[in-house]
Amino acid sequence: MNHLRFEEYNIGNNSGIFFTIDKFLYSTQSKYQRIDVFETPEFGRVFTLDGLTMTRESDEFIYHEMITHVPMFIHPNPKNVLIIGGGDGGTSREVLKHPSVENVIMCEIDSDVVNVAKEFLPTTSCEFDNPKLKIICEDGSKLIKKYKDYFDVIIIDSTDPTEGQGGLLFTEEFYKDCYEAMTENGVFSAETEDPFLHKKWLKLAYNRISNVFNVSNLYMGYVPQYPPGTWTWTFASKGLDPIKDFNPEKIKAFESELKYYNESIHIASFALPNFVKELINIK
Amino acid sequence: MNHLRFEEYNIGNNSGIFFTIDKFLYSTQSKYQRIDVFETPEFGRVFTLDGLTMTRESDEFIYHEMITHVPMFIHPNPKNVLIIGGGDGGTSREVLKHPSVENVIMCEIDSDVVNVAKEFLPTTSCEFDNPKLKIICEDGSKLIKKYKDYFDVIIIDSTDPTEGQGGLLFTEEFYKDCYEAMTENGVFSAETEDPFLHKKWLKLAYNRISNVFNVSNLYMGYVPQYPPGTWTWTFASKGLDPIKDFNPEKIKAFESELKYYNESIHIASFALPNFVKELINIK
Repeated sequence: MNHLRFEEYNIGNNSGIFFTIDKFLYSTQSKYQRIDVFETPEFGRVFTLDGLTMTRESDEFIYHEMITHVPMFIHPNPKNVLIIGGGDGGTSREVLKHPSVENVIMCEIDSDVVNVAKEFLPTTSCEFDNPKLKIICEDGSKLIKKYKDYFDVIIIDSTDPTEGQGGLLFTEEFYKDCYEAMTENGVFSAETEDPFLHKKWLKLAYNRISNVFNVSNLYMGYVPQYPPGTWTWTFASKGLDPIKDFNPEKIKAFESELKYYNESIHIASFALPNFVKELINIK
Repeated sequence: MNHLRFEEYNIGNNSGIFFTIDKFLYSTQSKYQRIDVFETPEFGRVFTLDGLTMTRESDEFIYHEMITHVPMFIHPNPKNVLIIGGGDGGTSREVLKHPSVENVIMCEIDSDVVNVAKEFLPTTSCEFDNPKLKIICEDGSKLIKKYKDYFDVIIIDSTDPTEGQGGLLFTEEFYKDCYEAMTENGVFSAETEDPFLHKKWLKLAYNRISNVFNVSNLYMGYVPQYPPGTWTWTFASKGLDPIKDFNPEKIKAFESELKYYNESIHIASFALPNFVKELINIK
């Protein structure tokens, strides 16, 4: 019997989660971070960066569907899509379900993450060979500066913010560059942490995004892979509204492939508990 | 420096959570279960039964607001309310915020839980001396048989289901007795576990409730105190609809006291992800 156990501490180190490991599949120290992949009895394959769970096979669909389909079904006709981060491939898999999409750029800073996903995470990296997808391994905060008025959808699927490299995807300058890189009908989503353990970063990220974009709305989902099991993203645009401009008819094109997202969930995800509204100063 | 750590295993024993303990406040073995109360740096006081977290000061408001206010704001004028379980007092605290309420019976099988809550959990047990509240320490599945056509609202705030005592609050017979004990306009809510770790019980409980009541709807919330951080309850009634008969105007009476629940959250909580719909066989 195998008793190997993975432990993950939450911010502040006063709480955390653990899970049993059946097998270590891979471990490396890349230029940017420590990468590990485990086989587990409870969650299937688990992929971690610097000891924090990024992706679990059992329920990664929730995070990836929510970061992707909420903005994608608001845009009337998304063709050019940029994903910053998203190295496991789950977000590009969801983006490529939309029949209107012609070109997807996935800009993941760490080529080791892409290679590990390709080898060990087939359920998320399954579209890496899709001819519509271009994978670029460089710093997303630099790449974004090369584009003006080009992308219909920009998705920021980053790691947790830190004072270092990860923090560059949470600055007001970066969000301004995203704004510039988007078309007039452009829409945007970004992971903005959770409202229990990461109050400070949620607030910072949401406030910075709302300083830059004309429309900005926090939305939420049930995401067990990230303690405490609640996650937020921020939708933003130059004018499109997440409810009024939402086009649920288009969901029918691939509704049987969706395990979490649907029309009611889209609308419900924008309903915020009072303590979350207070956190981001909305009445 | 204190390194005491509490560990809680999820069902199946392949994953779990842990948190640091500053101080053991109380521990006892009652007739029914082991009861512990800890002081923690992350979650304030934590109250556990048989090693499972029941209540944490930091975020118990979410579970208690959702199990209470969803049914209470659907009933046009709730006067007589029955809570089965709910020994920590959080549910009775929320029920007693409604100005129409005249009598609340809280039927908690374990008198030790009530005594521990009174002494160590002042933020949830704060209404134990309210003259509108009657606390009865007996088996709820027996007490319910004494009432016919009496309660406007019945709330089942039980522990996790088991094959033993806790399981009696999840049987079809018990739900039938609840139906009989309710008035024509009566409404009902029950905790029905989570859709990740407790799929089997969620399904069983929801199906049994929907076999008995004319109207039954699962609803969900972000509840970090119970891994995996998502929780469900089931609303049921003899005829009232959770959306059409919802009366949001009445929230104004004490909206400043609500930290989670609001009009949008009420409606949004009934939106179910596709995998949850599938679990309970609804299209």
